[in-house]
This record gives sequence, structure tokens and C-alpha cells, in this order.
Amino acid sequence: MLRVPQAQSPLLEALAGQTNVPPPIWLMRQAGRYLPEYREVRSKVSSFLDLCRTPELAAEITLQPLRRFDLDAAIVFSDILMVPYGLGQRVEFVEGEGPRLDPVRDAAGIARLNSPSADNALVPVYETIALVKAALPDRVPLIGFCGAPWTVATYMVEGQGSKDQAEARLWAYRDRATFQRLIDILVEASADYLVGQLKAGADVLQIFDSWAGSLPEEEFARWCIVPTKRLVERVKAEMPDVPVIGFPRGVGVLAECYAKETGVDAIGCDTSMPIGWIRDGLQSLLPVQGNLDPLLLVAGGRGLDERTEVILAALGSGAFIFNLGHGIRPETPIENVERLVSFVKNRPA
Amino acid sequence: MLRVPQAQSPLLEALAGQTNVPPPIWLMRQAGRYLPEYREVRSKVSSFLDLCRTPELAAEITLQPLRRFDLDAAIVFSDILMVPYGLGQRVEFVEGEGPRLDPVRDAAGIARLNSPSADNALVPVYETIALVKAALPDRVPLIGFCGAPWTVATYMVEGQGSKDQAEARLWAYRDRATFQRLIDILVEASADYLVGQLKAGADVLQIFDSWAGSLPEEEFARWCIVPTKRLVERVKAEMPDVPVIGFPRGVGVLAECYAKETGVDAIGCDTSMPIGWIRDGLQSLLPVQGNLDPLLLVAGGRGLDERTEVILAALGSGAFIFNLGHGIRPETPIENVERLVSFVKNRPA
Repeated sequence: MLRVPQAQSPLLEALAGQTNVPPPIWLMRQAGRYLPEYREVRSKVSSFLDLCRTPELAAEITLQPLRRFDLDAAIVFSDILMVPYGLGQRVEFVEGEGPRLDPVRDAAGIARLNSPSADNALVPVYETIALVKAALPDRVPLIGFCGAPWTVATYMVEGQGSKDQAEARLWAYRDRATFQRLIDILVEASADYLVGQLKAGADVLQIFDSWAGSLPEEEFARWCIVPTKRLVERVKAEMPDVPVIGFPRGVGVLAECYAKETGVDAIGCDTSMPIGWIRDGLQSLLPVQGNLDPLLLVAGGRGLDERTEVILAALGSGAFIFNLGHGIRPETPIENVERLVSFVKNRPA
Repeated sequence: MLRVPQAQSPLLEALAGQTNVPPPIWLMRQAGRYLPEYREVRSKVSSFLDLCRTPELAAEITLQPLRRFDLDAAIVFSDILMVPYGLGQRVEFVEGEGPRLDPVRDAAGIARLNSPSADNALVPVYETIALVKAALPDRVPLIGFCGAPWTVATYMVEGQGSKDQAEARLWAYRDRATFQRLIDILVEASADYLVGQLKAGADVLQIFDSWAGSLPEEEFARWCIVPTKRLVERVKAEMPDVPVIGFPRGVGVLAECYAKETGVDAIGCDTSMPIGWIRDGLQSLLPVQGNLDPLLLVAGGRGLDERTEVILAALGSGAFIFNLGHGIRPETPIENVERLVSFVKNRPA
């Protein structure tokens, strides 16, 4: 299936290496708790997982930010833990505490996982994508996503979020071969999941590697670079033209190696990356995305405008997608989002 | 007071820019929970703070790792929250949960802090240092330390450890002038505290900026670089010859700017920094310290030897102090520490 870029989609143009003035903008977690209309839909179901598994609701939530703000992409409302859920691991989201999973800690735990192909559990995500796609204007592409194998593995192994991903890192040090099996399963399951999202109508993919930053360089190469490269290759073998954005959060200097070696088409930059370094070290290699501090979007005011201007001035003359450096925060005032989008869209060229 | 380097101290030689074969080695948090003799002393007092405030016990704990391992430095057993404690903020350490403070969130909270000069609360730390110093052999210098103003401020503002230091960062965005007053107080109090430690007998200082990595570059310049530079200047105005190690954890690319601009004599590198980048980007500027993954020290075995060899091969031919990239973990087997120290000390030149 040949994917034809939609009519004048600034996001797809930027991902193809084009400089857009103004650059396209979308916001990580743009469909979420800072929106009252999200909270209203959320209140209709008892669990967060039910939201992700109910296509009508997930589609509605996906579309909400697009109705309010002049954004250049939608991103399907879902969660990176849908893949372990699809693999049959018990996944729960505890209000105010975060995800809880029955930890996988050994070969027996790996053996209990479903085969990736048995992922009927993920069909609601594909249905969500189809619903969203039907409702989106042509110029707004839909982003599908997954967590990177390493990041998803950290949750599967810890059984929850963690400060330093110690359980997964220790397992990888102590028994590399068995941990590799878990990563291999995740590469396959994630590839199937991403291809499924593309077939359902997603136009672009993003791979979130939120915990890549906890890995020293050799482990980073082993558990982030190689699996991501294989994942991208597997997806592109079936869907060669799909643009893939990689987001290796907190990896600092190692972002350059990620940009060069994984095969992603663009790289998401977190807030800790200096703009000059992004421009010289990354944007010279591929389109970049980022990296406004989500807390500055909470604070708002002139400081928000000033930093936005700095980012636009440094990165706007190359292939660039404006975004935050991390997900939007629930306490973000809506008027600050309006202010940001308006600033980006109306800045004199 | 002129500080004469002790007879053949590999640490002081490395800090003066000399290449040592083998390099000096010490381990962050080397006096701590992984040692049964520490746990025995700990069990004698009800609170962690009492340990830090009882010179005989703190001195004993400081010396414990030196009795077991052939380490090239001692570091006074204390905590970075001694400075807020000295400023009169309520500080408690809740077993298994970490520190709890009555948060400082506004100008009124700042006004309630003691004047830095009223820090009699810190006298026990100076007494600890005097006791340790009297017991240490000449070739083993004693490291005094404090938290960097930014990192200490994050605890003072949050009232505890936090994932993203959001309260402090938001305050800094929303009311820079008032937050600056808090930082200014911390610069002064930390400078007095470090000078007090030197006068009591400390030979070297380390400034821990554990949360510097949460700051985007402009905020990093404002709240990490500038206050650290002022702190180092204030200390060196009184004690010009003292070597200062800065440890800006998680700052990635920004470490180079830290190395160039703060005036520290050496830089601690965390586990996420690639060795080649440390060598080319940092060791070319000043002595470097680091950066073995503490989890690899937990895992032990051949993987530990192999990574240690990689680090030594890359950094050992310049001014270098072997250390971990973060504090040693409580679950670390003692035999792995023995193995590491022996590997570093006995590696063929």
C-alpha cells in the first residue's frame, strides 16, 4: 500500500525534510486531563484501561484537542502498556498512582505471555484509529504509537513505574539471554501493533522510549538502539513509506547515535537538550521535534513567549516540528496552550 | 591557611591534573547501608538525622569502608539536607520513604529561615570531620560536601524528593526574583558550611547537583551554573587551594558548559555519559570522575570487570578518579566492591 502524503500536511512535509514556516505543532499528551471535556468523558468509565478499550470514547478524546487548538496532528488516545496488555499481562491503572502490572521476572514469566499474534486485545485501538481517521480533515495526519521495547520492558519487569528501572536493568546485567527473549517478544509484538495501527489508518508513528536515559552506553546500544532499529525495519518492511518519530527521552549525548543508527525518520528532543546542540548535532541529520518545557506551558506569560521564540529562531529554519519536551501536564491552563499555538502560528517569518 | 597536599595522595594528585596508574578510587555513598557494620551503628539511634548529628557515630561510619577496602578517599558521613536543617527548616528522614521537610513555598517561608550564620546546628558535622581526620592516614584525604543550591532548593520547596522537581521549577518560572532569594541564601549558607568543613579538616569538596538534569538550558545556566560558580568563588576566596569536584547529575550535553564555567576543579560524570565523550569533551578540560553503573556493581561478575576495563582504558591515561556514576546501592554485595577495588588497583599498566 503506497502512502500518499495528504494535501499540504505541514507535519508530513516536515517529516519529509521540508522547512515549514510556521512549523507544524502538536503536543505530547495533547488529549488528556488538562481538558475539561476529557475529564467529562473519563468520568463515564471506571478505569483508564476501559477508555483505551472503548473506541467511541477513545476517538472522541483523540479529537478533543483538535477542536480547540489549531494543531497539525492528532495522536491516538491510548497507552504504551497496551502491548503488555495484548500479551496477556495483567495491567491496571490505579488512580493517582499509575500503572500496576503482575511483574514478569523470569523465563517462566516470559513463557506465560501470549503469542504476539493473539493480540485481539488491541483491536479496539485499531477501531479507534478508524473512527478518528474518518473524522479528521485531510491536512491533519493521525499519529499511532507504541512504547519502545526497553521502556515497555521496564514496566513489565518492575510491575509499575520506577525511579531508576533497577529491576529491568539488573535482570539485563545478570541474565542477558533471557532478558533478550523478553525484548525480542516486545519487538515482534510492537511491530505487529504498529503495522495494525497503520493498516487501520494511522499516517505517522512515534516510538516513546521514556526510560532510555537510565542505560549506560553499552546497555543503551543493546536495549535501545538495536531493538528500535529492528522494530523500525520490521514496520518499514510492511509499510515502507511511513514516517517514524523516535523519542529517546533523557539520553543526552547518546541522542546522536540514536539519530544515526535506529532508522527513525525524525527524533523527539526532551527539555534537557540545548537548542544549539539539537540544531548542530541532530537537525543536521534528520528532522527534529521538541522541546519546550511543559512546566513553562503551565507557568505561561512572557517567559513562555520568550522561550518559544528562542526555539523557533534556532530550529525553525530547518526541518522541525514544534512540540513539548515531555507530555503536557494536567494542571496546564488552556489559555496557555492557546497562547502557545497562536504564538507559533502567527510569528512573523 | 595554605593547604599542602598530603604525601602521595593519588586523589589530590589526580585533582591537580596528574595521571595516576592506577587511578585513585572512592565510591559515592561508600559509607552506608550495604555494610553490616553500618547497619549495626544505624540500629543504635532512632533517626538518620541523629546519626549525622552524633560525631562519634558519624565518624565511625565514615571510617568503616576504609577499613574494608583500599580506597583513596573518605567522605564525611552526612546529608545534603544538613544545610536546610541548619537554616531552621524542619527536616526528617522517614524510614523507607526518604526525607520530609516543611515546604518553603513563598517569600514568607524564606523569611522564616534562620540567618546562615546561625548554623550551630552544623557544628556536629565539623566535629565529625575533626574526629575522622585524626584517624585517617596521611595518604587518604577527607572529602567534605554539600548539595548544590538548586538541588537543595528542590527538596526545600517540594518538602521531599520528587520525580521532576516541578514545584521548584514552577516557582522559578513564576517568580524568579523570590526564588533567586532562596538560591542566594543557599549559596551563602553552603559556602559557610563548606568553609566550616575545610577549617575542621576536610581536604577536598564535592558539590552534589543531583537534580541539575531537570533544568532546560536557560534555567540550568541560571540555577545551576551561576550559583555553583558563586559558591566555588566564595569558598576559594577563603580557602584558595582547596580542590572542588562538581557533580551535575543527568545534565548530558550541558556538562561541558558546567566544566567550563563553574570554576570546579574536576567534574563527576554520571552513568549515562558515554566514555568517549567524557574523554574528548570533558577530560580535555579538567580531571574527571566516574562513572561505573552502581547496578553493575550489584550484578558483579565478568560484566563488572569488562566495563571497569573499558572505563580504565578510556580515561585512565588522563587525570581521572574512578568512581560510580551514582551512589552505591544498599543491596550491593561486599565481595563485588572488593572485586572492583582489586581490579582497579591491580590492573596491569
